[in-house]
Amino acid sequence: MEDLTTDAKKGVVLSGMRPTGDLHIGHFEAVLRNWTRLQETHGCFYFVADWHAITTDTNTKQIKEHSIDMVKDWLAFGVDPKKSTVFVQSLVPAHAELSLALERIVNIGTLRRLPTFKGYLEHIAGDRSRYDKDKNKLSGEARLDAFANAEVSVGFLTYPVLQAADILLYDATDVPVGEDQLPHIELTREIARKFNSTYGEAFTIPEAMLDADIVMIRGRDGRKMSKSYGNHISPDHTEEEIYERVKSFVTDRKKLSDEGDPYECPVFDLHRAFNRDGEVEVARACRNATSKCYDCKTGELPDLIADSYSDYRTRKAEISDGFVLDVLREGNIKAREVTSEKMDQVRKFMLMDYLK
Amino acid sequence: MEDLTTDAKKGVVLSGMRPTGDLHIGHFEAVLRNWTRLQETHGCFYFVADWHAITTDTNTKQIKEHSIDMVKDWLAFGVDPKKSTVFVQSLVPAHAELSLALERIVNIGTLRRLPTFKGYLEHIAGDRSRYDKDKNKLSGEARLDAFANAEVSVGFLTYPVLQAADILLYDATDVPVGEDQLPHIELTREIARKFNSTYGEAFTIPEAMLDADIVMIRGRDGRKMSKSYGNHISPDHTEEEIYERVKSFVTDRKKLSDEGDPYECPVFDLHRAFNRDGEVEVARACRNATSKCYDCKTGELPDLIADSYSDYRTRKAEISDGFVLDVLREGNIKAREVTSEKMDQVRKFMLMDYLK
Repeated sequence: MEDLTTDAKKGVVLSGMRPTGDLHIGHFEAVLRNWTRLQETHGCFYFVADWHAITTDTNTKQIKEHSIDMVKDWLAFGVDPKKSTVFVQSLVPAHAELSLALERIVNIGTLRRLPTFKGYLEHIAGDRSRYDKDKNKLSGEARLDAFANAEVSVGFLTYPVLQAADILLYDATDVPVGEDQLPHIELTREIARKFNSTYGEAFTIPEAMLDADIVMIRGRDGRKMSKSYGNHISPDHTEEEIYERVKSFVTDRKKLSDEGDPYECPVFDLHRAFNRDGEVEVARACRNATSKCYDCKTGELPDLIADSYSDYRTRKAEISDGFVLDVLREGNIKAREVTSEKMDQVRKFMLMDYLK
Repeated sequence: MEDLTTDAKKGVVLSGMRPTGDLHIGHFEAVLRNWTRLQETHGCFYFVADWHAITTDTNTKQIKEHSIDMVKDWLAFGVDPKKSTVFVQSLVPAHAELSLALERIVNIGTLRRLPTFKGYLEHIAGDRSRYDKDKNKLSGEARLDAFANAEVSVGFLTYPVLQAADILLYDATDVPVGEDQLPHIELTREIARKFNSTYGEAFTIPEAMLDADIVMIRGRDGRKMSKSYGNHISPDHTEEEIYERVKSFVTDRKKLSDEGDPYECPVFDLHRAFNRDGEVEVARACRNATSKCYDCKTGELPDLIADSYSDYRTRKAEISDGFVLDVLREGNIKAREVTSEKMDQVRKFMLMDYLK
């Protein structure tokens, strides 16, 4: 049988998702639709980022269930294990090995300056300030440092190095990312260049793949869509549930006579993602105040959303947990082959190839 | 054939050495003599700590040569691969895997507060202050932090977590260490307890094994013995070289009539290590100023030192690099078996055992 997974085609794509159990249509439209397209043109490696999932929360009670459900979603939505290698990060030891090697060429400050690290500290500090009587004792950077030292695992400091290892192990040429992940791809490129100049040309320098075509879908309250906010739509919702959820979305127009800005309206995100034929007309009617928001939400939109996931729902009902595990078992074997060959090269370049 | 390596006997010992190419009689007497004794009573795992060797210096040009020479020294001195498992850390992937897992339950501050980390920063800061015009811009902790961020690899921050993984993977009960490593054993115990209480009783809590009988041998200038200081004696030195080196040692007494303190004298370190039958008499004569320092150095001492390494030198000449590699190949297989079983348990406790 022809092995479609290794033909490099236009390049190699590496992408992963953390199994946190919160997939919604935002992930499907921004990530999975892209994954299913890319597997037609690229060699693709898609993985369950379980080491990353336990970086800020060490609770693993649901990790297995979430991982299997998530991969079932991928497969039901069209990720094809004949075209893509689908695997579990923690079951491919080379991710940890290369990460350990790369930790030796990355300075502490480089990691502390990443916006994700600083942002997380500010998030913790914000949480604490609600009940922290001592908040005036330290200020600014010193206060953030104190939180970093006391409450942040060193795994949260080093996870961007693990991400670099994830990418470099597969000689990925293209990494689909959102804007917030751009500094991590830049770090990966820096690390690859530093390794290559220190030990020899082991690694391909990857490119970030920002797709302008991807619609970021906000939740019904206009905030980032998230299951934990309860403002999401799930591909597993029934037609009725989708109808009710869409109907409850906030819109940009307060009164019928207001002229709206569709790009400020989370309902227009849905039209852009699910109503490509109609979006221009919807936007015009919104700007000119010739349509009612109610009609914009309850017209054909809920059906378009439900229809776009009908194949997914049918297939999902047919996929057993056992099938998912079989796919992962094969994917892990494939990923281990690719990465142990890469680690052999890495050891050779590092002159640490003691034994054949 | 009976496998002597796995019989737990009185417990399991784990110990490693960094292949830095600087073994001298200090290491032989403080570490290797202990290793050869322990293998008679304990299950012993002795490893080439090559990931640790490249934590502060990424130059790997001589790492293979140093590793093979070092293990040849171990074997020539009496480490017996039939009794002890001898292996290379970087060729046993579970060390990296468990380290990555443990990084998730150790806070950044815990690692920054370790005396080895602070000591290293002070060492860098001291080096810099010789030519650093801006040294007054920052002071104290802030100055050290700036060095940590700019010049220290994150691998240097996390290496004590890797040490914890080294130890816990083998359910070591006893870890032979010098006093400077005690905080790292304490950290290992803390990490093991935290893992056990978070995920279940996966790990044995190890004990530090401080041997009061071990003599720390200072160099000929009274400083710590080190090849880089040129103040060392090597087991590979000829009788003449040993005689000349011992003769050049500083002593505690300025004049013949001074009463000496043997514990202040690096020559007495040598008597304690190599002249157990005579050390009491030597100490008395020193304290009473009834002996000459010259005689104390040039009497039977050089011969005693040379004699104690004569078997070692004979055996070393007979051991080929190929034999060393064979020993490591077998040791790596054994270490991989033990640790992959342990990682299976770890995954089970972490509920990350997706696949059989």
